[in-house]
Amino acid sequence: MNQPMDALPRFDDIRDAAARIAPHATVTPVLRSAVLDALSGAQLHFKSENLQRGGAFKFRGACNAVWSLSDDEAAHGVATHSSGNHGNALALAAATRGIVAHVVVPEGAVRAKVEAIERAGAILHRCAPTQVAREAKASEVQRATGAVMIHPYADTRVMAGQGTLALELLRQSGGLDALITPVGGGGLASGVAIAAHGIDSELALFGAEPLGADDAAQSLARGARVTTVVPDTICDGLRALVGERNLDALRAHRVQVITVTDADTVAAMQLLWTELKQVVEVSSATVFAAILKRRDLFTGKRVGVVLTGGNVDLHALPW
Amino acid sequence: MNQPMDALPRFDDIRDAAARIAPHATVTPVLRSAVLDALSGAQLHFKSENLQRGGAFKFRGACNAVWSLSDDEAAHGVATHSSGNHGNALALAAATRGIVAHVVVPEGAVRAKVEAIERAGAILHRCAPTQVAREAKASEVQRATGAVMIHPYADTRVMAGQGTLALELLRQSGGLDALITPVGGGGLASGVAIAAHGIDSELALFGAEPLGADDAAQSLARGARVTTVVPDTICDGLRALVGERNLDALRAHRVQVITVTDADTVAAMQLLWTELKQVVEVSSATVFAAILKRRDLFTGKRVGVVLTGGNVDLHALPW
Repeated sequence: MNQPMDALPRFDDIRDAAARIAPHATVTPVLRSAVLDALSGAQLHFKSENLQRGGAFKFRGACNAVWSLSDDEAAHGVATHSSGNHGNALALAAATRGIVAHVVVPEGAVRAKVEAIERAGAILHRCAPTQVAREAKASEVQRATGAVMIHPYADTRVMAGQGTLALELLRQSGGLDALITPVGGGGLASGVAIAAHGIDSELALFGAEPLGADDAAQSLARGARVTTVVPDTICDGLRALVGERNLDALRAHRVQVITVTDADTVAAMQLLWTELKQVVEVSSATVFAAILKRRDLFTGKRVGVVLTGGNVDLHALPW
Repeated sequence: MNQPMDALPRFDDIRDAAARIAPHATVTPVLRSAVLDALSGAQLHFKSENLQRGGAFKFRGACNAVWSLSDDEAAHGVATHSSGNHGNALALAAATRGIVAHVVVPEGAVRAKVEAIERAGAILHRCAPTQVAREAKASEVQRATGAVMIHPYADTRVMAGQGTLALELLRQSGGLDALITPVGGGGLASGVAIAAHGIDSELALFGAEPLGADDAAQSLARGARVTTVVPDTICDGLRALVGERNLDALRAHRVQVITVTDADTVAAMQLLWTELKQVVEVSSATVFAAILKRRDLFTGKRVGVVLTGGNVDLHALPW
């Protein structure tokens, strides 16, 4: 019996993924800032995935998925639906293997991200900006082309790939007390949770979620997946509903989700640009906003902070 | 007989400076970008001094100067005039030794930079935005306080400190064919030239200068220092006239200066933000603008590119 596509990866899957993506992915630096440490009262280790290939952590998962395929599976290419970074990552990953990528892009996605997907050589398919329309269009493309569907987060191979950044971060930082990632669909948060606890089961895990897309926080509070949230946030990378298995992982690894307002996030984004000198997208700033909001949880701790991406339209900055 | 304050440093002075500043300065990363390599046709190694303490390379020179002083010399503090980054660097460097920094700041300097100088604990002294007014005010402060004057670029210790980044860059990149820095007063360009040629005398050296402040280019062309240029450029860090000794160094090390328009520089700045994901100030983008303008000089070469700083007012971006 095959395991479901969205089964949680094991720690060994993540170590295998690290070896699989090593020839293609960047070992991104971990940056520090005395000013941001002072502001937060914690020792912050910023894993700078804005410097990852394609400008976001998504390349790790896409690359692991593409290179996990047999030659027969890979022959008709890969397909996905994505508001931007996963689509771009899959296009770049497909190019490393010389196969086609079909990307379903919802109307209203960030223009700079859609352009990057086109530049990476993918075939674009437009659809309405709803989860249902995205999934329907992706199935249609998949049936028409025979491409293998690579879901942005509810996919074992993708989660395993995202988890590899935690292996690097723990090695680079020399040990942490806590680790925080944004939570959108939950692929990153679940991969990171499994990887981090595979190394250090004592590590405290946190997620940051926009208040206007707090389905993961609500789901954890109610003990059941909440699917009625209509996302209303400027964090375009965090509008997806958390996946069923992803939610299981958050629960199993006791990930505490902190919600932040868009105003908190924009203020945090400006601090990351000004002090850390990193161009990070608004979704990436939720984690630092969460640390500033809940200083009580992080005071004096060594905290790994995942900056997820840096694909920004400089002509549409949120200040 | 004492040597003049602005004598060029020797290679050994730069190696000594590297040891002196090591406990305080950051070994900044060297970043790469496949997209920018493709755009330029060269292999670009970006020495990211925007990630240096204080957000600019200036900390290296200021720190070396401050820690070169005897205890008696240091007792009354240090003083300088600066449009921003050197003042901030000197304030931070003085703090590492627990001494006072007096900083003369011309009216019209970038607000974010002046605020950073205040935060670093310096005593501010305002003056008119001319070279003459800056130097007069600095002398006045020096006489009144007994502080040691640390010139932003016409100072042996400062040039030696700036040169340390070339030692790191050559080690980190594993060898280069060419190296380019912005040219303002010339402290960075001369320190880097002496350091780089101390390691590899074959290295081709370049400078980038705003067309609206092209006194170094004019001086090299005429064979004599041109002091009549009235700076007209948005590159606030590059408005100073090149120093006499600094010019000697540019000549002795055959530094080829490439001039760029502010429009070229702003376009290059946007590419650095978008593709390298680095917040760099407008002066820092001159180097990449110069590479794009003179692709013929860099094609196929391994080029070290010094990104000098990242202290930017996010509410006054030039696009």
